[in-house]
Amino acid sequence: MKVKTPPMGWNSWDCYGAAVNEETVRRNAKYMAEHLKEFGWEYVVVDIQWSEPTAENHVYHPFTELCMDEYSRLIPAPERFPSSAGGKGFGPLAEYVHSLGLKFGIHIMRGIPRQAVHRNTKILGSSHTAREIAKTNSICAWNTDMYGVDPEKEGAKEYYDSIFRLYAEWGVDFIKCDDIARELPHEEAEMILLSDCRKNCGREMVLSLSPGPALLEKAELYKQYAQMWRITDDFWDNWESLYAMFERCEKWSIHNGAGHWADADMLPVGAILQDYSKDNRTKFTRDEQRTMMTLWCIFRSPLMIGSELEGLDDFTKGLLTNAGILEMIRDARHSHQVWRREIDGIEYVLWTAVSSKGGTYAALFNVGETEGTADIPLTDLEIYENAHLTELWTGEEKADTDRLKVKLNAHGCAAWLIR
Amino acid sequence: MKVKTPPMGWNSWDCYGAAVNEETVRRNAKYMAEHLKEFGWEYVVVDIQWSEPTAENHVYHPFTELCMDEYSRLIPAPERFPSSAGGKGFGPLAEYVHSLGLKFGIHIMRGIPRQAVHRNTKILGSSHTAREIAKTNSICAWNTDMYGVDPEKEGAKEYYDSIFRLYAEWGVDFIKCDDIARELPHEEAEMILLSDCRKNCGREMVLSLSPGPALLEKAELYKQYAQMWRITDDFWDNWESLYAMFERCEKWSIHNGAGHWADADMLPVGAILQDYSKDNRTKFTRDEQRTMMTLWCIFRSPLMIGSELEGLDDFTKGLLTNAGILEMIRDARHSHQVWRREIDGIEYVLWTAVSSKGGTYAALFNVGETEGTADIPLTDLEIYENAHLTELWTGEEKADTDRLKVKLNAHGCAAWLIR
Amino acid sequence: MKVKTPPMGWNSWDCYGAAVNEETVRRNAKYMAEHLKEFGWEYVVVDIQWSEPTAENHVYHPFTELCMDEYSRLIPAPERFPSSAGGKGFGPLAEYVHSLGLKFGIHIMRGIPRQAVHRNTKILGSSHTAREIAKTNSICAWNTDMYGVDPEKEGAKEYYDSIFRLYAEWGVDFIKCDDIARELPHEEAEMILLSDCRKNCGREMVLSLSPGPALLEKAELYKQYAQMWRITDDFWDNWESLYAMFERCEKWSIHNGAGHWADADMLPVGAILQDYSKDNRTKFTRDEQRTMMTLWCIFRSPLMIGSELEGLDDFTKGLLTNAGILEMIRDARHSHQVWRREIDGIEYVLWTAVSSKGGTYAALFNVGETEGTADIPLTDLEIYENAHLTELWTGEEKADTDRLKVKLNAHGCAAWLIR
Amino acid sequence: MKVKTPPMGWNSWDCYGAAVNEETVRRNAKYMAEHLKEFGWEYVVVDIQWSEPTAENHVYHPFTELCMDEYSRLIPAPERFPSSAGGKGFGPLAEYVHSLGLKFGIHIMRGIPRQAVHRNTKILGSSHTAREIAKTNSICAWNTDMYGVDPEKEGAKEYYDSIFRLYAEWGVDFIKCDDIARELPHEEAEMILLSDCRKNCGREMVLSLSPGPALLEKAELYKQYAQMWRITDDFWDNWESLYAMFERCEKWSIHNGAGHWADADMLPVGAILQDYSKDNRTKFTRDEQRTMMTLWCIFRSPLMIGSELEGLDDFTKGLLTNAGILEMIRDARHSHQVWRREIDGIEYVLWTAVSSKGGTYAALFNVGETEGTADIPLTDLEIYENAHLTELWTGEEKADTDRLKVKLNAHGCAAWLIR
Repeated sequence: MKVKTPPMGWNSWDCYGAAVNEETVRRNAKYMAEHLKEFGWEYVVVDIQWSEPTAENHVYHPFTELCMDEYSRLIPAPERFPSSAGGKGFGPLAEYVHSLGLKFGIHIMRGIPRQAVHRNTKILGSSHTAREIAKTNSICAWNTDMYGVDPEKEGAKEYYDSIFRLYAEWGVDFIKCDDIARELPHEEAEMILLSDCRKNCGREMVLSLSPGPALLEKAELYKQYAQMWRITDDFWDNWESLYAMFERCEKWSIHNGAGHWADADMLPVGAILQDYSKDNRTKFTRDEQRTMMTLWCIFRSPLMIGSELEGLDDFTKGLLTNAGILEMIRDARHSHQVWRREIDGIEYVLWTAVSSKGGTYAALFNVGETEGTADIPLTDLEIYENAHLTELWTGEEKADTDRLKVKLNAHGCAAWLIR
Repeated sequence: MKVKTPPMGWNSWDCYGAAVNEETVRRNAKYMAEHLKEFGWEYVVVDIQWSEPTAENHVYHPFTELCMDEYSRLIPAPERFPSSAGGKGFGPLAEYVHSLGLKFGIHIMRGIPRQAVHRNTKILGSSHTAREIAKTNSICAWNTDMYGVDPEKEGAKEYYDSIFRLYAEWGVDFIKCDDIARELPHEEAEMILLSDCRKNCGREMVLSLSPGPALLEKAELYKQYAQMWRITDDFWDNWESLYAMFERCEKWSIHNGAGHWADADMLPVGAILQDYSKDNRTKFTRDEQRTMMTLWCIFRSPLMIGSELEGLDDFTKGLLTNAGILEMIRDARHSHQVWRREIDGIEYVLWTAVSSKGGTYAALFNVGETEGTADIPLTDLEIYENAHLTELWTGEEKADTDRLKVKLNAHGCAAWLIR
Repeated sequence: MKVKTPPMGWNSWDCYGAAVNEETVRRNAKYMAEHLKEFGWEYVVVDIQWSEPTAENHVYHPFTELCMDEYSRLIPAPERFPSSAGGKGFGPLAEYVHSLGLKFGIHIMRGIPRQAVHRNTKILGSSHTAREIAKTNSICAWNTDMYGVDPEKEGAKEYYDSIFRLYAEWGVDFIKCDDIARELPHEEAEMILLSDCRKNCGREMVLSLSPGPALLEKAELYKQYAQMWRITDDFWDNWESLYAMFERCEKWSIHNGAGHWADADMLPVGAILQDYSKDNRTKFTRDEQRTMMTLWCIFRSPLMIGSELEGLDDFTKGLLTNAGILEMIRDARHSHQVWRREIDGIEYVLWTAVSSKGGTYAALFNVGETEGTADIPLTDLEIYENAHLTELWTGEEKADTDRLKVKLNAHGCAAWLIR
Repeated sequence: MKVKTPPMGWNSWDCYGAAVNEETVRRNAKYMAEHLKEFGWEYVVVDIQWSEPTAENHVYHPFTELCMDEYSRLIPAPERFPSSAGGKGFGPLAEYVHSLGLKFGIHIMRGIPRQAVHRNTKILGSSHTAREIAKTNSICAWNTDMYGVDPEKEGAKEYYDSIFRLYAEWGVDFIKCDDIARELPHEEAEMILLSDCRKNCGREMVLSLSPGPALLEKAELYKQYAQMWRITDDFWDNWESLYAMFERCEKWSIHNGAGHWADADMLPVGAILQDYSKDNRTKFTRDEQRTMMTLWCIFRSPLMIGSELEGLDDFTKGLLTNAGILEMIRDARHSHQVWRREIDGIEYVLWTAVSSKGGTYAALFNVGETEGTADIPLTDLEIYENAHLTELWTGEEKADTDRLKVKLNAHGCAAWLIR
């Protein structure tokens, strides 16, 4: 049986916003295949607005004209994805990504294009039309492209069937569906319809729901209908957001596992926001970047790199290819926070997980504002005998001890495999 | 290092209410030593109103006269605890319990007796008086014995020191402190003072906080200052309360371990409410009782028997001495709910934990209203290879399987050790 | 100085929904001029969807094509309003209504047509376009015609100026603006802009805000920027809604007066819902209709008749032309509820007001479910001397009394002028 | 028929707190009779703790011993009220007050003395005892004297009957009952019992409920069972509290009249807080004091002077005896706020009422922080003809005008009778 682990890959959003194009995707896919694939990185995902001819950065164009086929289905803008011309859609690009031994993903918005509704265009496999299935007062708060689809209307299922069959033809492996995760109380039925149509489309596709924060009281629903769901609004490179993620992860940890993953969002590392400036770099300190990677891995969040990969600097490459830390994303089970407390005026958070290969993982985070030395007995982890420690970032070993003792910078961390 | 596991014992409340007396305690302690001790049962706890001469059942007497020493400290009523006469307090009874190889616990209420405040009596080790340390508008909603103590007042610490030193002299091993767990937002400082005075009293005592529901957002505080805290109001023998416990346990599970335990309350099994009728028996069905024991054990709640032990019937004795189930309370680690979902119209809950002896625990509960057969792949537990199952209630084994398949009665359950 | 009193008139909604047409308006205006004008009835209001060629009843057509001029301004559909052909808009119809000695009103929706935004059409007097001033995530929850206008955008003021100048050219006296009254917390700035553009358009127009419930905490804002604002969602002919109006009126009463009026909505009397059936009649009992008229008049709500006027039955005509009751809408001042209480198991509500012509008004409502006789001392109204009573529905007089004594049917009422 | 107007008088609290004594009461009563009675001041009220021998200022003594008769009824402490010795209670003091042509009032707390409950003393006219009728978890949040009484217990009615009959024997005309007005959701039944026992005690007594804020949604209940109820917590001499009173009065205005009055609390003017210092004076400016008096009078709040009366300074005496302003408290009807708005950056509030003698009252308040000149058309008051104005504080007249034009200091006001 295939072990299910959180998806790992690259997504175009942090770096290129709505302006991602074919050349960018090919370049990053190539880099991933050559340098990162061996460490488990696998998905290449084209984020939002690929059907809009004129998108140029992270800003959305309201009411702009989108590329659409005669059946109300958005298709890639050939201006930006030249290989899609002539009705080929994302087929050629997916083929290229597959040829590198990687998987191909795309972003979609819940619903049906407004322009299809206004023009009242056709739906494949149904005598009903776009206007008839639209949910007229269901719109996205931050993007004008779509209306929601009313799952109770005849033609709604046919529409969702038709788009997923198109994606299957293209060879899509991963769908990031937006305007849906935190809309569940209202749009639950549309999410279920959409997920079911995906399951029945003839090709296996990961379903990733955005944006967060997802609703904890709907956890069982996300687990049942999706592989990933965002537990936060868009995550960027500032400490306040990273600090806040500890509580989100604490609350969601028991829902991770067996192919369904609470998603702490992309890793804004390296070169990001390149649609604004070629020189933009993450504002996270190195300690903060290690803390982020450690938390995401022990918590088992999906990992999606935000950086432009070409020309990746050594630090960031090391961060993304540290074998010790990445073993947690594959091997950790039963992850959870142990405690969060002040010691000598500094706030620490302790996490643990079991390794499926034997032993126990622990990660200690200094989430305070000054350097400190923590000295934690292994009994806090319910380990009642002396043990052997391997620190996962450094490989440093310590034999026959009953304590985790470590000096940590502000916002820094350490992680151990304990046997 | 001593492995810390949830306290197990007997408590007088479910059976005798406020009317517990010395003879009852001795009789149950003796039975426990002879029949239950070998299975891990250890604490004998005298619950509420032991200082009240006239208590006769579960009903409290408002404003009744309590036995108190000259220092505002409640002492046992000699009418009900004859060995306490002559200022010996619970010393002789504790000595008897200890002689059986067991541990001795008592109930207290947060605060200082109202009668001490009204008479303005002395506090040992302080020139301040009862009235000076009372928090005048802090009263228990359901019992008239006490006023809260204002931790900011001089004399407050001396009062709490004086009562815990008295309990240490008596030989008390366990304090169930009432009117405090769910009062935390208001009475946090009093809880901390009380807990600290207990730590410094010269004798190790388990601190158990009541009544619930404790406040999830205060979890770190309970973990730091107490060994047990009630996550529910008084739990009795009806399915609605047992059903509701699944959600309570789901939310609290990550806070259990390493000597601090979320407490799902007493086990209302066997012969309870004997202060009303000698013939009273639990209204739980046998399935429900197994479900309760299984949930409490895999969740690792403390276990406190509610039944009169003398003449314990065979079913109840079997329930409380099933070695397979009880190994979970000692060996389970990282307990958590896996999912809760409907299958064929029946609601099931799946729990898991890791065994410190190797292997994985799983428990499946049919919380629906009809019998059903569930067939759960081991991959739901992130077990990706065929495994060997031992059902813990029956000892039944199944080799080389990739599924948990079982027929369960309404409100019934099964539990497995999976290797 | 002209005394300001609540507007009274006829509105097409209750009877014809979205399907009102020119012939209907002319017919009802003519009836009003001949039969009702002398009692104070004055406004003839064309309600929603007059720019939609195909509207046929109370159901809205999502995303339908509307008649619009080149400057993004909706104009009447000539299919339904033939006199508007050739760019004349509502000018000829307004002229006809004025020729009868009446005033002419129209309904509008807050915002700018979606079709203007999608086509990005021009705005009169501005170099900016429809798309540039639209507030992209501000839509009506129940109608798909418009997007909100962002008052901070350049061109927004020019748009609103341009539509009100057009209405002034047509000769409009009354604007019922929809999707705005209960949206105030979000759309306050748009309401203020719209109201100011109206004030400066060169013609006096009553501004009526819909739909309710308006927000009590914004009362001063409504009073400052509008003449009427709906305090309820659409009001129809059922007792539950009429019963609920008593509390609404109690809370809003002190905000009525001096040209600003809390609006309890249209009077669903006589022949309503004629777009469905020519035979539809109000479901209110006669007692309930008198209770409605009495409450609306003593509270001083605007009065808008919902019935088709042609062929008005005698009861309804009497209801709408009772001089005694209608004097309250002109002469009442300082209206307010006195009390609401149970007497002999029946709930009554007592209202009072001062008459600007001298004397005190009182209205007593039996809002219970059985007939009852109430006997209320005048001292409840702070009248401490014997007085002379005139019952306003019947004209019955009673001299030298200190009591209001009356038998009332369930849902019935009486009203008095007390001197 | 006697016109009902809001009670006016003097209360000991603002000046003497819990330490009021007989000499003080006699002195102030004498002053009132000689200097204020002619202006309508009538009640002399002994506030809290008259049964406590040792009370000395505004601080309560927790759990102190109170004077009580054998039937659990509190009686005046003879140390502070010498004439009460020998079982005479407040009889002699009431007789003195009556001899001056004034009325006599006392303060009570809801409930039964804790000391009666603890000693389990008798209840007059019942075989039940104090402990049996106490509601054990109903205590006052700020005073330790009483437990609530459970109205469902036998003996509860007899207890309340017995205290009101005692007060009737003493000659009490006014009861200020504390710990009850804002406790209504919980203690409604006790309030009703208490009020009914008062009505049936054989002597007419005003019932005044404290402390506030009373609950607006219970308005009809206060109106039915009491003559006054506090709409605010204790009101003292600071602008923030006075500013906040405008909104309280706006909301409560329609509930005032016909013998039931929303109470804006005592007037902290002149010499207050004399239990701390003989030289203490109100911190309100003169403008603020006039604003307070004007609002209380046009709103028709009861008026209770807080100052020591002996040696009253000229300004304060003028404030309390201005005939123009005080005519509003007798003659105003239908009082209500007209609007609250900013003019030229200054916030103003406009109130109006009708005079039962003819004409309209108006009061304009500058509640902003700078001086300003307001110019308000009479049409805002629905007066549509030129009128004659008399300013009530100054007596200044203005004929034939259509405006209220006035310069007002920050926190200042003007009031007019308009004919």
